[in-house]
This record gives sequence, structure tokens and C-alpha cells, in this order.
Amino acid sequence: MKKTLNYQKILEEIYMEIAPTAHEGVVASYIPELAKVNPAYFGMSLLFTDERLFAIRDYELKFSIQSISKVLSLCLAFSITGDELWKRVGVEPSGSPFNSLVQLEYEQGIPRNPFINAGAIVLADVLHSLLSNPKQDVLNFFRKVTGTENIHFNEKVAASEMAYGFRNASLAYMLKSFGNLHNDVKAVLDLYCHICSIEMTCTELSRAFMFLANGGMLLNTGEQILTSSQTKRINAVMQTCGFYDESGDFSFKVGLPGKSGVGGGIVAVHPQQYTVAVWSPRLNPKGNSALGMKALELLTSKSGLSIF
Amino acid sequence: MKKTLNYQKILEEIYMEIAPTAHEGVVASYIPELAKVNPAYFGMSLLFTDERLFAIRDYELKFSIQSISKVLSLCLAFSITGDELWKRVGVEPSGSPFNSLVQLEYEQGIPRNPFINAGAIVLADVLHSLLSNPKQDVLNFFRKVTGTENIHFNEKVAASEMAYGFRNASLAYMLKSFGNLHNDVKAVLDLYCHICSIEMTCTELSRAFMFLANGGMLLNTGEQILTSSQTKRINAVMQTCGFYDESGDFSFKVGLPGKSGVGGGIVAVHPQQYTVAVWSPRLNPKGNSALGMKALELLTSKSGLSIF
Amino acid sequence: MKKTLNYQKILEEIYMEIAPTAHEGVVASYIPELAKVNPAYFGMSLLFTDERLFAIRDYELKFSIQSISKVLSLCLAFSITGDELWKRVGVEPSGSPFNSLVQLEYEQGIPRNPFINAGAIVLADVLHSLLSNPKQDVLNFFRKVTGTENIHFNEKVAASEMAYGFRNASLAYMLKSFGNLHNDVKAVLDLYCHICSIEMTCTELSRAFMFLANGGMLLNTGEQILTSSQTKRINAVMQTCGFYDESGDFSFKVGLPGKSGVGGGIVAVHPQQYTVAVWSPRLNPKGNSALGMKALELLTSKSGLSIF
Amino acid sequence: MKKTLNYQKILEEIYMEIAPTAHEGVVASYIPELAKVNPAYFGMSLLFTDERLFAIRDYELKFSIQSISKVLSLCLAFSITGDELWKRVGVEPSGSPFNSLVQLEYEQGIPRNPFINAGAIVLADVLHSLLSNPKQDVLNFFRKVTGTENIHFNEKVAASEMAYGFRNASLAYMLKSFGNLHNDVKAVLDLYCHICSIEMTCTELSRAFMFLANGGMLLNTGEQILTSSQTKRINAVMQTCGFYDESGDFSFKVGLPGKSGVGGGIVAVHPQQYTVAVWSPRLNPKGNSALGMKALELLTSKSGLSIF
Repeated sequence: MKKTLNYQKILEEIYMEIAPTAHEGVVASYIPELAKVNPAYFGMSLLFTDERLFAIRDYELKFSIQSISKVLSLCLAFSITGDELWKRVGVEPSGSPFNSLVQLEYEQGIPRNPFINAGAIVLADVLHSLLSNPKQDVLNFFRKVTGTENIHFNEKVAASEMAYGFRNASLAYMLKSFGNLHNDVKAVLDLYCHICSIEMTCTELSRAFMFLANGGMLLNTGEQILTSSQTKRINAVMQTCGFYDESGDFSFKVGLPGKSGVGGGIVAVHPQQYTVAVWSPRLNPKGNSALGMKALELLTSKSGLSIF
Repeated sequence: MKKTLNYQKILEEIYMEIAPTAHEGVVASYIPELAKVNPAYFGMSLLFTDERLFAIRDYELKFSIQSISKVLSLCLAFSITGDELWKRVGVEPSGSPFNSLVQLEYEQGIPRNPFINAGAIVLADVLHSLLSNPKQDVLNFFRKVTGTENIHFNEKVAASEMAYGFRNASLAYMLKSFGNLHNDVKAVLDLYCHICSIEMTCTELSRAFMFLANGGMLLNTGEQILTSSQTKRINAVMQTCGFYDESGDFSFKVGLPGKSGVGGGIVAVHPQQYTVAVWSPRLNPKGNSALGMKALELLTSKSGLSIF
Repeated sequence: MKKTLNYQKILEEIYMEIAPTAHEGVVASYIPELAKVNPAYFGMSLLFTDERLFAIRDYELKFSIQSISKVLSLCLAFSITGDELWKRVGVEPSGSPFNSLVQLEYEQGIPRNPFINAGAIVLADVLHSLLSNPKQDVLNFFRKVTGTENIHFNEKVAASEMAYGFRNASLAYMLKSFGNLHNDVKAVLDLYCHICSIEMTCTELSRAFMFLANGGMLLNTGEQILTSSQTKRINAVMQTCGFYDESGDFSFKVGLPGKSGVGGGIVAVHPQQYTVAVWSPRLNPKGNSALGMKALELLTSKSGLSIF
Repeated sequence: MKKTLNYQKILEEIYMEIAPTAHEGVVASYIPELAKVNPAYFGMSLLFTDERLFAIRDYELKFSIQSISKVLSLCLAFSITGDELWKRVGVEPSGSPFNSLVQLEYEQGIPRNPFINAGAIVLADVLHSLLSNPKQDVLNFFRKVTGTENIHFNEKVAASEMAYGFRNASLAYMLKSFGNLHNDVKAVLDLYCHICSIEMTCTELSRAFMFLANGGMLLNTGEQILTSSQTKRINAVMQTCGFYDESGDFSFKVGLPGKSGVGGGIVAVHPQQYTVAVWSPRLNPKGNSALGMKALELLTSKSGLSIF
């Protein structure tokens, strides 16, 4: 790795190059709280395993990390259950979104991977069974990996997700009909919606994912969250399944494992090197941050750093 | 990288560990030539970018590389057309095999990726348009990247594929109905079947893919087959789409870009480090070499080398 | 019509002919109340528009009419809303059961017809909006068309359907996500499950459907439940959609509009001539009464009466 | 039946009522020969079993009957093979057109019914095996049921169908991959395309289908083409499958078994009463004649004649 590159300058160049297309895409509007976000926000934080941090613009503003939280839920569940987890959820990409429901039916209630909604609902069910105080315990885990107490649910967002989440309720009952949801549907969805409502800044997000670049170990405390082998597997799942129907394209253009959320956040991990978080609320037609995708493509091009 | 490991010993250990399950899986039988192969064969070749080669057992026997050849066809086409190619074929994983045809219909004749049969037929059509003497020119490319003239089509296999390939003919006409196949269907399928019929040894296969571990450059001549950036993209497509419905699982367990064929061969690439080819004819239910999958999982575990 | 046929004898002959296969098929077991029914029961009632009634064996025993009740719900809703109803549910056959959910998704929450579960849930929602006292009002309608007060919900069956109906809950939430379910999901499913739990004897069932053979008019009171034109349309929907994935086959072999239920009941209508109800609890692989299907095929063969 | 109605007047009234919408719909354009037809043509012929004929406007002009010919192919094949035929093709409606291919795959190469393209290609294969001189023998059958030698293939249409029929070729190879197409694909498609290219006038079409209203017997010669029971079954298949994705709607609004073609023709059968043929080249979005559908709906409304 060429550590002598001026990363602060690279981040600023990236923003200059993508700014002309900053009007592209639309902010998620399926719940009012997301629709109200200023679409002009843009933040980016690049954190190396040696703790150097480079960041630009709105990197200290909190935003709704949404589906990005599914990776951390997955790590928490995986750290407790080990490989038992894969009896209830797969690790294969899901193909087109169109087929999500028919696949669930065809594959008898086992979601293809933990990042499609059906998979994340199963994760919430697993955590609900494992944890004595599910919501608080999940929150504590997010705080531990991020290294700050300042991580919270947004109760308004959680309530909105619950109120408008008829499709998730449909998925949950389908999972229950196949015996792959063990707890009360409402309680599981409540946990699911709370997990999605967590808010972080770009810098917090880059810190929260650092253990995945660091062989499973927290930088600050040295605690081993996952084994080295488990860590590789989580990164592999992000690589193949992290961007819905655009996973192949992200892998193709960026070449890093990562995860996006409809709040406009994206996080990516370069094992043994760095994590990077970017946030821009406007989404492309596939539901991923339009500017965020471009920023990460430019980052790997300019830095020459990719896993391939 | 720990270059001091004794790789020859590692390969031998791997074989010892997987040998007890050597009876699992079934040899492909849809064409007579494949069905006749001795299921007990096992070969493995590990080639580093510094040209060190380690190999065990039947690594000098020729076998039908089948779909593995799709990667090299893709490289040849990509090297000529550049990014224009992606107008005719996507880079997303295909989800379950069940949906292959409906996806082609739903997505208006653009195959999801170059490694599903529909995608490889489009590649054959592209090559048929680009090359003056398609079959010979493709063969010459395979010979160049492998560094030997001793690479041939198996005409019997090609003829069998042609005679029994009604499903490929169905796909080809479907592509033509969407305007994504420009040449005569029979000529395109003939080229496609010939490409699938190419035979290599494990060692040849590891050599043929070495430029993908070496930034696009041939080790022996220094010729740049693909740019560094193009090379990364090919590796990314292998990572997400190389193993049909088991791509996620391979990525999860092995953590390397790779490609399998129904002849029982698998090749994987560790960028900047090595290529590895393994061959064992018995296939698991997803159509990938049963022993080969295990051998590669053990290789990355034992060597500690993975991209994640 | 040859009214001089001895219909009592024909019914008895039919039973003799099908009795040797009486062991085929399995009783529905997805809820305990259905599983407990004696599989040896067999009843059949043939009622002409001139009020002649012929019946054999267990024609006076009550059984769970299940999905057969969807036709009467449809008539009730249609009689109130008129053609507005078809904005919320279609009249096309549903193709294979496999596709039920994907079709609902593809067609944006408009169920293909009123007899698939999604369609009947929409009907329950429509009735819930229209009626001041939905459950009692529906029951009163069933009593009126049957001409007896002795028609009841089976509360145990309704409760079981509710408790085990995760798939229906999944469908209901999906409909709600598309805006095609206006009331509280639980209340709608409660009404739906009650309607399915209604019990009748074969003779009651033949009476309940008589207005559909009689141009929409009740035989006993002369009340016009539906117009003549509306009646034809209901019969047409039964003809094309009444037997799930076996609608074509029933039309092909029997040639009458009809409807089946998983309780083992089937009712068929010969416009201007008769209604016929048959009950035998064992179901064929498509979910229709095995003996019932054969009995009706024999009836139209022996009587020479078919609409074609 | 009210035979005293003035049917000539009814036909003229029907035309008056639908004429204001005569600009709706578009002429089929996938082959040049169909695209050239004057969209203003309109013909209608109503033929009773007592040989009374009523007809208006362009009822003596030849047009391409296209898929309507599939019913007569079916009758010819069925008359030779009997119930053996149903091992190779089903009698169930096909659901949405979207699913046609996935259904063929899911159901292992047995087309859902004889009127979807895959089913008609199987029929052509059956006829190719059964007949010594397939094209001429089929033509002779069409001539016999119509009662005239003046029935011909349109060789230009057949050639165009062949040249542009990539999708049919795709279906044929898929069928062959499942073992449900026994002859040479090209020969079968050539027969299929010729059958589709047959031309008739409205009056000829009403005559050609008369045996289906007459218990299987030709009016003029008394020859029994099909048994009475077989005739009912053909009518039943038309009822449930005759109008692609609009079969339910046609049954709902018209209430007669019938069949449409992309040339703008529709024929319907009222068993024991009449046949009716209508032709108007503009098609609605489901591929059925827009005016033709309306004309038949009005006919059954005005005459009060429906099977329900």
C-alpha cells in the first residue's frame, strides 16, 4: 500500500469530480422521516487500520444507517450461534428483486442471504431468541463496536417503519408459515424496525466496521468480536450480497466488500487496510446512494487499492 | 504473504484430508464423452506469480475445461471491445438457476452475466463478429495465454454438445428474438460448443489464468492482455458469478475469484499472489466439483491466504 | 333435457362405480378440525330447478364448505357494489399455484380472481367495509339463499384457520402494501376465516347455489339476488377459476361451472337445469375432492347434460 | 331459443354501436404481411345449426386466421390419437403470458394447453408424426370441415412467420430438450407456420367451426369428425384457454367458448345453436380483436343467448 498518498486531497478531489452530478437520484420517501433529509448533504470518512482518519464535509452529521445495520446484526448473531446460523439463512446473492418472494417460496422459507429483508427479519428473530433484552443488547453491541455511547435508535423512524412496513409484515408471516420465524411476529418486526432506525455519522460508521478490516478485533480494546475466519466470511457475504441488485456492479466497479442503506449511506471494507463510509441521500434507481457509489469507485481508482 | 510455507506439503495434506469423501458426487453425464471419464482422477496445480509451481497427482492429464473457458472468451472479447461489451451482457449474479429463462425474458434479452449459458452464447456471438477466423483465433488466444501450442478442441465433445444442446439452441433463439444475437444461430452455437470443448491439464490451466493474478500481463512475454483496471473487473465478475448458484458459498468458504466447469475443473485467482487449478470429475448437486470445492477451501484455510 | 331419466338410480350407479377408488387421496390436515373427519363419508344431492331432489348416502351430514363459501361471498359483494368490484379483483384464471405470490406482486396487488386466497381476502375486506355487522350479515345472507336458519360458523374451525393462517396473513399484508386492503388486517382475516368455517349438508349446498341456476332468483321466495346478467358472470368465473390449478381439467371433464373446497365439497351449476353438490373428504393432489371430481364427471356423462 | 329474433338487424345494430370506437387498438405488425391489412375492415357471420346465415360488411374477404387454426389442428390430432394426446399437452389456462416460459420449464416441457404457442408447436409435431403428407393433409382437413376447396396457405405469411419466429424456435428447442418434440425442429416449425398462415372469410370460418356446435358432425355430409364427448372437451378447452390472458374476461363478458387470432379474427361456438365469426384487424393490448370482443359481447347481450 502506498501510504504516502495524500488521502485528504484525494477525498476532496473525489467530491469535486462528482459534485456536478449531485442533483441525480431521489431521496427515499417511503417514510416521512427519510423524505425530510436535505438531499445536499455529503459526508465521507476514510479510516485506516493504523487509526489515521481522513474525512470531508458532513462527516459529523448523524443519518439513518438503515440496512447497513444488518451487517452488524449479522455479526452479533454469528458471534453467538456460529455456523448454526446458516441453517436459517443462506449466503447466495438474490438475483433480481422481482423474484424475492417467489424465491422465498421456492426455497421453502430460507432467505437467500441475510441482507435481503426476509433474511434480516430472520436475523431479528434469531437475536430475539438469543438476547435477554433484545433492543438494549443490540444497541449496546453497536455502541461497543463503534466505541461510543452516543448511538441511538430514532424512535420516530422505527415507528414509521412499523406503521408503513406492510411488506415486511407480509414477509414475516410468510417466514412463519415455513417455520422460520419462532417469536411473535410483531415483536420481531419491532426489533427489526429499531435496528434499521439506528443513526450514525460517517466517522462512527467507519469506526463501527473497522473490526471487519482488522481480522475481527476491535482496534481500541483488542476485543475479538469474530474470529479471523468468521470475519472473512462476513466480508465475503458483503461482497456478493451487499448491494441488492447492484452487488455485481459494485464489486465490478469498486472491488470491495460493502453495504448500502436507503438512508444514503454506504460503508466498504478493505481487509487489512481501511474502512470507508460515505453518505449522500439521493438514491439511484437500484436504491443505492448515487453519489456514494461514484465516490467509492473513484476512491479505489485513485488510490489503486482494491482486493482484485 | 508467508512464502516460507511448504506448499507441496500443504497440497499433499489437502488431498489426504479430502480423500475419504472421494466417492461423493456424480460425474456429468449429459454428453457421453464426459460420462466416460474416470471419476478417481484428481489433480491440483498451484502457481505463484514468481513462477514457483507446486502440483500433485493427475496434474498433467488433459480434461475438458468446459465453462472455465468462458472466462478466457470474456477476456478476449473484452480486450477487443472494451466497455462496449457491457451493453450486451450484465455483471450481476443470476440468483437461482430456476429463474434463468424468466430473467432473460424479464430483462429483455440481456443475460445477467457472461458465465450463465445465455451470457456465454452472447460472447460467442460477439467473438464471431469480431474475429476473421473465429474458432482458430480463439484457439490461438488460449494458446498464447497458456504459453503452449498444445491446446486443442475436442471435436467429439464439441459435436456432442451441439447434438444434445437443445437448451442452448433455445436460449440462442430467445436471444435472437430480442436482437442480442447477430450472427447465424448455428454458427454461433458451433463456436460456443468448440470453446467449451477445449482441454487442458491443471498446470496449463493455472498458467492460462496467471495474467489475471498479474495485473493483466503475461508472465513469460510481458504482453499486456488486459489493463490493470480491466483485470480487476474480470476478477470481480468471477467473484460474484463464477459458480452458478454456489457463487456466494464459494466466496464465503474460499474467498477467491474463480470459475468452475462441469468437467470437474475449478480455477481460482489470488490477485498479486497465485493461481490454482484443481480437477476432480465428481460434481456436487450444484454442478461444481465436489472435491475441488473442498480442496480450495482447505488451501485458503491452511495458507491463510484469502482476499478478505 | 331427458327429464325421464331415473336420477336416483344414476346417483347410485355413480357411487358403485367410484367406490373401488374410495381409498385414494388424503384428507386435509392443515388444521386439526378438518383432519378429524371420517374419510369414508360420501354424500351427493342433485336439485333441479323444478325442485325435484335426488340424494344419496351422507347427504344430510354437515361438513365444512371452506372455499365454496367464496362464491356466495362474491355474490353478496357483487349484489351490493355491482361492477365496481372488478377494480379490486380480476376474473382471470391464476395459472399454476406456484406463481400465486409473484403474480400478486407483478400485477400490483390485484388478485387474478376472487377464488384464490388473495382474492377472497379482498372480498372479505370489501364486505367488512360494506356491512354494518359483517359476520352476522354474511351469515344471514347464507341462510337466506339456503332457505334455512340452520347455517352456522364453526368457531373452532375459524379459530384454527386464524391460528395457523400465517400464509393468509402474509397475503393480507401484501395486499395492504399495495393499498388493496382497507380495513384492519386482523379484522379482515377474522371475517375471512369465519366465512370459510361455514358448514352445510350436500342438500343445503345444492339449495344455496340454486339461484345461480335460476337466473339469479331464489326458488322459494322469488327474490332476485343477482340480475340475470350478473348471474351469468358469476357462473363464468366459476367455470374458468373454480378449481385452482384443475379448473381446465374440471371444465374439460365435467363441463359445468363449479367450486370446490378443501373440506371435500364440490358444487356445480347447470344453468336453467340443476345444481349438484357432492362431498367426500379425501383430496387429490390438486386439493379437490378425489371422489367428488369423478362423481361429477360420471353425472354429466350418464345424464348427457353439459353446457358444451 | 328465440328464433324469431331478427338477427340481420341485430348484427347491423351491433356494428352501429361499436363503430364509434373503431379507431381503438393497433394492427399486428410483427410480420409485414399482417401490418399491411386495412384496419377499417369489419366482417361478421352468424351461422345457425339449421343453416340460416346472417352476415354483415366484409364477411366475404379472406383474412389470416392465425391462431384460430390451432383449434382445427387440435381437432384433427385429437380425432386420430384420442386421449393419448393429453400426455403431451395439458388443458389448463396459462395464467399471465409473462410466465409462459417459466411454466414450461417448471412443468417439464408439457405445455399448459394446446393454444399457447408451445402447445401448438407440440400439436404440429404430433401431426407431423401422424400424417404422411403433413401440410397437404392438414389443408385437406380444413377444406373438408369448411366445405370448400378454396382454402389455402398464404406462403408469404408462412415464410415471414418462419423468418421472424425466433421465439417459436426458442420454444421448439426447449420442448425438444424435454423430449416433447420428436421430429426435426425446422420441419415442425414449417408446418406450424403454414397452419397459422391459412386464410378464410368470416363465413368460411363460421362454417369451419359448425361441427363443434353440432356434436362433432359436419352439417353438409353428416360425417362425424369428433364424438359428441370429444366435441364437448374441445369446447371446454376453448372456453378456458381460447383468449390468452383474456380468457376469463371473454368467458365473463361473452359466455361462449371461442378462439381469437392476431389477424383480428374471433370465432365462438354456442353448442347446439350457432357459430359466429367476426373480423376486425385492430387488436387490444391483450392481442385480441378490439372490435371483435365488443361485437360478441353485444351479440350475447342482445340475443340473450349464453351458455350460462
